[in-house]
Amino acid sequence: MEKYRVADLLKSTEFGEEVTVKGWVRTKRGNKHVAFIAINDGSVIHTIQAVVDFAKIPEEVLKNVGTGACVSVTGTLVKSQGQGQNVEIQANSIEVLGVADETFPLQKKAHTLEFLREIAHLRPRTNTFGAVLRIRHNMAFAVHKFFNDRGFFYLHAPIVTGSDAEGAGEMFRVTTLDIGNPPKNEDGSIDYKQDFFGRETNLTVSGQLEGELAATALGLVYTFGPTFRAENSNTPRHLAEFWMIEPEMAFHEISDNMDVAEALLKYLVEYALEHCKDDIEFLNNRAIEEDKTKKESERSKTTLLERLNNVKSNPFKRVTYTEAIEVLKTGKKFEFRPEWGKDLQKEHENFLVDHFKIPVIVTDYPKDIKAFYMKQNEDGKTVRAMDVLFPYVGEIIGGSQREENYDKLYARVKEMGIHEESLWWYLETRKYGTCPHSGFGLGFERLILFITGMTNVRDVIPFPRTPKNAEF
Amino acid sequence: MEKYRVADLLKSTEFGEEVTVKGWVRTKRGNKHVAFIAINDGSVIHTIQAVVDFAKIPEEVLKNVGTGACVSVTGTLVKSQGQGQNVEIQANSIEVLGVADETFPLQKKAHTLEFLREIAHLRPRTNTFGAVLRIRHNMAFAVHKFFNDRGFFYLHAPIVTGSDAEGAGEMFRVTTLDIGNPPKNEDGSIDYKQDFFGRETNLTVSGQLEGELAATALGLVYTFGPTFRAENSNTPRHLAEFWMIEPEMAFHEISDNMDVAEALLKYLVEYALEHCKDDIEFLNNRAIEEDKTKKESERSKTTLLERLNNVKSNPFKRVTYTEAIEVLKTGKKFEFRPEWGKDLQKEHENFLVDHFKIPVIVTDYPKDIKAFYMKQNEDGKTVRAMDVLFPYVGEIIGGSQREENYDKLYARVKEMGIHEESLWWYLETRKYGTCPHSGFGLGFERLILFITGMTNVRDVIPFPRTPKNAEF
Repeated sequence: MEKYRVADLLKSTEFGEEVTVKGWVRTKRGNKHVAFIAINDGSVIHTIQAVVDFAKIPEEVLKNVGTGACVSVTGTLVKSQGQGQNVEIQANSIEVLGVADETFPLQKKAHTLEFLREIAHLRPRTNTFGAVLRIRHNMAFAVHKFFNDRGFFYLHAPIVTGSDAEGAGEMFRVTTLDIGNPPKNEDGSIDYKQDFFGRETNLTVSGQLEGELAATALGLVYTFGPTFRAENSNTPRHLAEFWMIEPEMAFHEISDNMDVAEALLKYLVEYALEHCKDDIEFLNNRAIEEDKTKKESERSKTTLLERLNNVKSNPFKRVTYTEAIEVLKTGKKFEFRPEWGKDLQKEHENFLVDHFKIPVIVTDYPKDIKAFYMKQNEDGKTVRAMDVLFPYVGEIIGGSQREENYDKLYARVKEMGIHEESLWWYLETRKYGTCPHSGFGLGFERLILFITGMTNVRDVIPFPRTPKNAEF
Repeated sequence: MEKYRVADLLKSTEFGEEVTVKGWVRTKRGNKHVAFIAINDGSVIHTIQAVVDFAKIPEEVLKNVGTGACVSVTGTLVKSQGQGQNVEIQANSIEVLGVADETFPLQKKAHTLEFLREIAHLRPRTNTFGAVLRIRHNMAFAVHKFFNDRGFFYLHAPIVTGSDAEGAGEMFRVTTLDIGNPPKNEDGSIDYKQDFFGRETNLTVSGQLEGELAATALGLVYTFGPTFRAENSNTPRHLAEFWMIEPEMAFHEISDNMDVAEALLKYLVEYALEHCKDDIEFLNNRAIEEDKTKKESERSKTTLLERLNNVKSNPFKRVTYTEAIEVLKTGKKFEFRPEWGKDLQKEHENFLVDHFKIPVIVTDYPKDIKAFYMKQNEDGKTVRAMDVLFPYVGEIIGGSQREENYDKLYARVKEMGIHEESLWWYLETRKYGTCPHSGFGLGFERLILFITGMTNVRDVIPFPRTPKNAEF
């Protein structure tokens, strides 16, 4: 269907055939007699070179073939004479579909990632963002393929919700009320019965609870959708809008949960290494070059490819939270002293991953630092939580076995002051044919950071949403 | 991995082996000596039968095996003696994982779809909703597979947006301001600079514009995400939150656009017929049975399977809007008289599909009834729009070639009074290497209505969002 795509033409061996390529000019160089035009169409990181003989192509056409212009070049496919690609096109005709004048921001010089964020509508035309977006696509597809091949059903959890999955978390309000002048009840409070949904509604922070409803009917399900946090965090690790993958699995206990999490992450890394080879190589070299501009102490100790191969080749280390605290106590001086009962800090997670030199799964956390729905252990102190800690990005997965016992779950809801009226349906699944089940959440952008080696989460999503920024 | 799933066990021929099945009890019947328990786990529409000899299983266990209970049954896999499935399990032991008392709402009797909407947390345990949700999964996967196989890249368009893709449409406000008491400017207006994103933001009505940005860099992209309309429409065809698939394709003119739309729809129907055979057969029979309870005049003229095969087997009819109006004028009396320049009504669309007896693609609509971004034809009156009209569900796809000429697009933006400041990035793609491109939107729930033969869009999404309803 797409015979004019660069990805297809670069693989072609039909030398001597007339072909057409359509794409955007990356560079034009040459001498008095001939011009070399590098054309990219986003199908692949490479450009295809069109060789233009000035005798064949009118000057008034060629003068419009500048960086950023969109062209359709028809010519003969030949073996490349120069370095780089195997094939090139000897142009017989060129049609300029769209010019780009000298104000086009992506001229040949390198641009900072910060600058490119301001022109997120154009940055997919750069090598770096082309590579990131192709990898992002491949990872999304691999997620669906992994679960589909294993008999899971994809569930679209609702985005607008009247409940709060975590019993906490800052949420965005969704409303059609007149914000300055909403209808009021007699007591002066806002009359949300008149809002579109007849109640207070927010953007979801997680599809887990709805995933559990479906898992206790269909067995194996997963969500993959946008989730939202109204946290005012301006860091390279936070987005207000991000995508999450949340499998929920009936008849899976915590060890099965770990098995699935490990299998999924290994599958995704292997899929990327197999299907995104050129893009990962480009990003690997890009990171190495960038490191050279940094001070020795700030350089990465591992390359992107080393990290990917490490995850691919090693079984993950599984330790309990209690064991992890013991390991941490043998460690260096931390800013926050490791102490049983307190949450692990980023410095602790990094230490554990460095210590074991492979991804680490920490389980059985103190119940007081985890969510209400996690299954309580016999010891009365810990819950069957699990966090997967990765090199480079830290916590990449958080999950747990879920509390399936109605009385225990209800007691915890009460204890933690959670608004039970908004969760009647969740509690009911424990009344009617409850079953052991587990699940976890994988932050998609966190995954893409790991696979691409990028350092800021704003650079692995097409149009990032952050405090004071919803452009594009 | 999942050896205890009903789908796997029903296909097994390892007779005499000990197996375990885990799932929910649909029915229990029997006589003085033996009980027959039908178990479903959502992996497939069928149940597997466990035969229980009272001599083997204690009565105190069996009394908890009621409809809705969750059980784990271990026993010998044998060829079935009765009708229906080929295999059954002779139980050696039963563990009741979760009881369900007589208040469990899904007892054996049939329930109305209206009632089931009120217990959307439990309805996936019914045959109908199990079938719908499995088909929904398969269709989502097929969408990704279709595009991935053809070199498209999946794009996550933003959900929270500062722009309005259609220049119209009722939108949901997203905010973290105090609704009753928002910060004000000196002139009394609300100070949205203090809102989370520093501006007014809404939930997206379409990812198309962002899709176009990516298509003019990566060539072929598609979105598949939630979209929102704050329309106060309580109809079987409207949801406030629904999922859309929106491909955008560089170097595709309107006829290429039609080719892709037709190929996609045929692919999805064929995929469903191949991968969801049992579920579709169930729904086909369900609709036939339901029709028998209706008056002759209200019955469907075609069955679900007939409609699916019709789409699979016939090339779509392509007509211009002007031709369609001529056809309509030869037709019966309509409530709304067909007239050039006016939008087609549902009765007109139905007539066209009935007239040609196959899906119809109507193109080249009057520009005044279509969106600003559609490519203007030479005639000055029409635009390169296309709508795909289906039997049973009406318009299933709407799309167009996009206006790639900056001056023409800008003139249209001005003419239609669209807020250009919020679209500077969209306009810029026409300044820098613009190219011919096209795209369309496929409403996912509309598709699922067609594939399942359900009649209300609330019954083809797990947790519908409609006016005054955001439960679960």
